Amino acid sequence: MTSDPFAQTPEPPYVAVVFSSVHTDGDDGYAAMARRMGALAAEQPGYLGIESARDDTLGITVSYWVDEAAAVAWKQVAEHLVAQERGRSAWYDDYRVRIATVTRDYGKG
Amino acid sequence: MTSDPFAQTPEPPYVAVVFSSVHTDGDDGYAAMARRMGALAAEQPGYLGIESARDDTLGITVSYWVDEAAAVAWKQVAEHLVAQERGRSAWYDDYRVRIATVTRDYGKG
Repeated sequence: MTSDPFAQTPEPPYVAVVFSSVHTDGDDGYAAMARRMGALAAEQPGYLGIESARDDTLGITVSYWVDEAAAVAWKQVAEHLVAQERGRSAWYDDYRVRIATVTRDYGKG
Repeated sequence: MTSDPFAQTPEPPYVAVVFSSVHTDGDDGYAAMARRMGALAAEQPGYLGIESARDDTLGITVSYWVDEAAAVAWKQVAEHLVAQERGRSAWYDDYRVRIATVTRDYGKG
């Protein structure tokens, strides 16, 4: 999405949604969906940013939101609901979602 | 570490430390350190589990702790301090650390 892989988050508190997933074999439309969902998320009210990494074992995507209401609203966006349903049936062997309030943060600086 | 890539976390609330990093080129002892730190973290009081993914762009490691005091104590473990210092100088071009309180979670089931 951008050349900076880090989300540009404000001073805490804000909300992090940690999505950890084990993928099924093959792509089966996953990469295109992930790009589309990333772009769609960025248009939602209260969106702060996203960070994502994926290797052979696990994928982790952390999306950041101004508050929990914004995170819940994104979960309910119609096109996202379709992707979630397809995720459950086709793309993810298993996953965990954790909704958390960030209370402190810091960087390398 | 284990065949289950997901952390076995209890009912919320608990604490998540999200560590996102951009790596320098090459390994330079990183993989061995990461294994050692994973094993050492698992020995700490209040440790709940860890999830990690890394691709060419970003690495994300989320460690889970019973409370913020346990997470802070792990940050101060002597051998970990040495690894953090080496991380700043050799392994990470940049990173972000976010300390968060998990308030809700769910899985595929």
